[in-house]
Amino acid sequence: MPARNESLRDHACLIVHGPDRPGIVAAVTALITRNQGNIVQLDQYSDDADGGAFFQRVVFHRADLAASMPEIEADIQATLADFGMEWTLTDQSVPKRMAILASTSDHCLLELLWRHRRGELPVTIPMVISNHTNTAEDVRSFGIPFFHVPSQGTDKSAAEAKILELVKDNVDFIVLARYMQIISEDFLETVGVPVINIHHSFLPAFVGAAPYRRAKERGVKLIGATSHYVTKDLDEGPIIEQDVARVNHAMDAAALQAHGAYVERAVLSRAVQWHAEDRVIRHGNQTIVFSDRP
Amino acid sequence: MPARNESLRDHACLIVHGPDRPGIVAAVTALITRNQGNIVQLDQYSDDADGGAFFQRVVFHRADLAASMPEIEADIQATLADFGMEWTLTDQSVPKRMAILASTSDHCLLELLWRHRRGELPVTIPMVISNHTNTAEDVRSFGIPFFHVPSQGTDKSAAEAKILELVKDNVDFIVLARYMQIISEDFLETVGVPVINIHHSFLPAFVGAAPYRRAKERGVKLIGATSHYVTKDLDEGPIIEQDVARVNHAMDAAALQAHGAYVERAVLSRAVQWHAEDRVIRHGNQTIVFSDRP
Amino acid sequence: MPARNESLRDHACLIVHGPDRPGIVAAVTALITRNQGNIVQLDQYSDDADGGAFFQRVVFHRADLAASMPEIEADIQATLADFGMEWTLTDQSVPKRMAILASTSDHCLLELLWRHRRGELPVTIPMVISNHTNTAEDVRSFGIPFFHVPSQGTDKSAAEAKILELVKDNVDFIVLARYMQIISEDFLETVGVPVINIHHSFLPAFVGAAPYRRAKERGVKLIGATSHYVTKDLDEGPIIEQDVARVNHAMDAAALQAHGAYVERAVLSRAVQWHAEDRVIRHGNQTIVFSDRP
Amino acid sequence: MPARNESLRDHACLIVHGPDRPGIVAAVTALITRNQGNIVQLDQYSDDADGGAFFQRVVFHRADLAASMPEIEADIQATLADFGMEWTLTDQSVPKRMAILASTSDHCLLELLWRHRRGELPVTIPMVISNHTNTAEDVRSFGIPFFHVPSQGTDKSAAEAKILELVKDNVDFIVLARYMQIISEDFLETVGVPVINIHHSFLPAFVGAAPYRRAKERGVKLIGATSHYVTKDLDEGPIIEQDVARVNHAMDAAALQAHGAYVERAVLSRAVQWHAEDRVIRHGNQTIVFSDRP
Repeated sequence: MPARNESLRDHACLIVHGPDRPGIVAAVTALITRNQGNIVQLDQYSDDADGGAFFQRVVFHRADLAASMPEIEADIQATLADFGMEWTLTDQSVPKRMAILASTSDHCLLELLWRHRRGELPVTIPMVISNHTNTAEDVRSFGIPFFHVPSQGTDKSAAEAKILELVKDNVDFIVLARYMQIISEDFLETVGVPVINIHHSFLPAFVGAAPYRRAKERGVKLIGATSHYVTKDLDEGPIIEQDVARVNHAMDAAALQAHGAYVERAVLSRAVQWHAEDRVIRHGNQTIVFSDRP
Repeated sequence: MPARNESLRDHACLIVHGPDRPGIVAAVTALITRNQGNIVQLDQYSDDADGGAFFQRVVFHRADLAASMPEIEADIQATLADFGMEWTLTDQSVPKRMAILASTSDHCLLELLWRHRRGELPVTIPMVISNHTNTAEDVRSFGIPFFHVPSQGTDKSAAEAKILELVKDNVDFIVLARYMQIISEDFLETVGVPVINIHHSFLPAFVGAAPYRRAKERGVKLIGATSHYVTKDLDEGPIIEQDVARVNHAMDAAALQAHGAYVERAVLSRAVQWHAEDRVIRHGNQTIVFSDRP
Repeated sequence: MPARNESLRDHACLIVHGPDRPGIVAAVTALITRNQGNIVQLDQYSDDADGGAFFQRVVFHRADLAASMPEIEADIQATLADFGMEWTLTDQSVPKRMAILASTSDHCLLELLWRHRRGELPVTIPMVISNHTNTAEDVRSFGIPFFHVPSQGTDKSAAEAKILELVKDNVDFIVLARYMQIISEDFLETVGVPVINIHHSFLPAFVGAAPYRRAKERGVKLIGATSHYVTKDLDEGPIIEQDVARVNHAMDAAALQAHGAYVERAVLSRAVQWHAEDRVIRHGNQTIVFSDRP
Repeated sequence: MPARNESLRDHACLIVHGPDRPGIVAAVTALITRNQGNIVQLDQYSDDADGGAFFQRVVFHRADLAASMPEIEADIQATLADFGMEWTLTDQSVPKRMAILASTSDHCLLELLWRHRRGELPVTIPMVISNHTNTAEDVRSFGIPFFHVPSQGTDKSAAEAKILELVKDNVDFIVLARYMQIISEDFLETVGVPVINIHHSFLPAFVGAAPYRRAKERGVKLIGATSHYVTKDLDEGPIIEQDVARVNHAMDAAALQAHGAYVERAVLSRAVQWHAEDRVIRHGNQTIVFSDRP
């Protein structure tokens, strides 16, 4: 049983989404109240008041939450069945288990490890997997297991099988922290947990390889980074977070890359935090993000 | 009877604040539902889950709202009395009436008039009052009445009396769009409506006169602007919105002023919009702003 | 003879670019000194110290500049011939003549007129041309001639011929302030002056039509605007300036468009100012911008 | 003899400042040319073309720089004596020696060590000194010596004497990376090298202790950080760099502090980099920063 986050003890997060209908907000809040919950935070959004989709995130405090979860879940199911809504209920004190996949670049990887150590990412990190060994010592200095799974030529299936073996049932989501191998569709289907990537451009600009070089060639005045859920279509998945930095003519592609590293680590960190806090709801190829930022 | 904003017909905004208690969110949402309201947007905030202050803003749609307001208000009063909450209910389709006070600078004034013409500020503007005449023609070209109330020496009371006469019962709030006269405590008490100011610095830095000159002397690398409610203490009122722009050593005080004008007009516009949309709740010398911006 | 900008009287701007060679900076500064010029500002850039391209912008003060221009130009020609450099010398007190082409949207157009009136754009505006008439009154209230040249069906040649007739020999550059007609390659070749456009996306993302709608569909978390020189390839010309604004899931395409208008007007204004101040040097499909901003 | 930065071999940086006079730029560039230097970068600024102060930074390449420094320095002295200018000439391949003083907070400290390891700060770090021991292991994992100098009660003189002993003749500048002890005037005079601090507010707002708590109390909508040279007047020294982050009502003082840490580490890193690259010139209580950033 994982260590609990004591500051979030007895805090639950209920995500509800489905077709919008009058009374849905009231039904959910009444449900929480009759289950002795006290609403701490509530965000909701409807993409069209007249027949659109509805999304709600409610964090509530409920004494003795762990023991009462089954009962609350039964009531949610009974209540929301009427509305045709999908829902998930999570105990906020149970951190999600996150695997990080990395390659030689350390900036995104170390930023995640360091924010985790500061207590800013509500996750556990059971493992870091890399196809290189250069970050092993740093990773282990944070007390986190490091596994080396080398990439071997053009056939990725052996490496992917090895990674699947490591993460199987051990993690709740996977973060590609500048992991420079393309993930196969097979892997995505088999792994069965969300995979979050950081792409080093402001998508949909510069999909694919070498975005900083292409940014230089196009002469853009801003560079960017994009964190998104990985789907079978390269760099096309639902965007969680993006940001940019100003550049100028005097910066060559290497300078763009060095400068962009700071955007990448910030964007990925925010995306990971929001995913870990159940703030992101996928909706088609878009995301609803109930961010904690102004 | 003022022109209604048809896109917001039958939309009400309920603001509730007071001591936080379990069940308050559910009580309010149930109340709206039993009054045939459909919640369109809901924001809430508690500054301390354990005995703090609670703030909620709910926008709901209710067919035939205008006719049913008295009934809904009676129900709100009955419901919230139990919780000791303060509340206001407004019909979102009725624009607030805003007077603008200006001096020679036109950048904040014209920005507000222009955003209003674009339909981005849900207000009517019954009058612009200035102690100078240079903006009269521009103001009237927007179809808005302009009144010249000159400042006369050190005794402001005659000018303030004239302004009070103009705004009395005619406006719901007043905006000082770089109005360069200090408002007396007497005026504030008599006028009885909120007064919003734009100060040309990042408060609390550079309270008082000549902030750009003092910013230059201090050698700051960012300049800012602050919009706040006016209280009897100069530049000390509750802050609604702030922003900054980067500057460097090569900009003299005049360049800072020219550059800062663009920050001022943006900051004041956002503050006015949020106030007009009932997104700002005063709480002591602070504000809760349920902004529509990411 | 156009009105001169008295604050820039006797200020010249020399732009030099060509193959980088040792001693080029010293040669140029010595040249200015022996022509009684005092350097006020100097920017230079070399894209590769070892055989790259060199770019320099020098602003200098020289008493009685207008009379001495021929003599200085002769000396520049003699000096720079040795280095194989291209150059232009302009009298900074002579404002460039700018035509604005617009359609129904007024935000970029009015921002340019308003900044011009504030003295922040060193240009004259001999004409605004629009294929609609809705902005005529606003434009003329600034004391600027307005010409209506309607677009007529799919054959743009008559309208373009009419525009060419108006601008021929009357303007030094043309700004497309959300002008919603595609400019033909013939027009560009015939007009013989730079044409600056504002595109309502962060290029190269969302080239072409309806960028806000496509931004919404892709679920981006930032929207942007790009000002660039127009070339025969749509939205592919050298970028002068770009910027972005944060958006979120709750904004529909119309909200993105309303929000983006503020980015567009700021980006276009900066691009126009920098072009007018000879701060932009085209180099292949890129620009060197010696900006005055930190 | 310290390890040289090979990528900057034979690159010199000449800083010149003093009263502005016609011909100064040409005199300096001619001087560099006749000493076989090729100008790589040149920035200059005059705060008033008519009798103001002049500042110039020139980076030039000169084969066999180390051997020719005395000769170049003699020529600079002879040339600039006529203009009454102060100057410094540095070999850019020789990194400055930087001591870091820290307390318990690790965010600024680790960011500097990590950027240094990436090769982004052109310094050597002969030592980290802290009045606590919690960061010792992290510091040493970067291969950098760590010294513990505890603060002892209200008399700081013993601790300061110990620090002086460590840094004496061993460092070129000192960085206070959230070092929570006030530096005495005696220390500053004795140490004889520049000391750079990071203050956790947007100065001049919230000078002194507990800026995040006071920011919360004042209800500001942005928090900031300021890096400045330390002078005898607390938080009053010349500002090198500042930045801000947006906050809202929902963040308590602890959240502001956690959020602000990311601003602090970025601001301090930029200030340190610019100081190390001789991009900062002190001028009274202001700085001229010839930044490499757009």
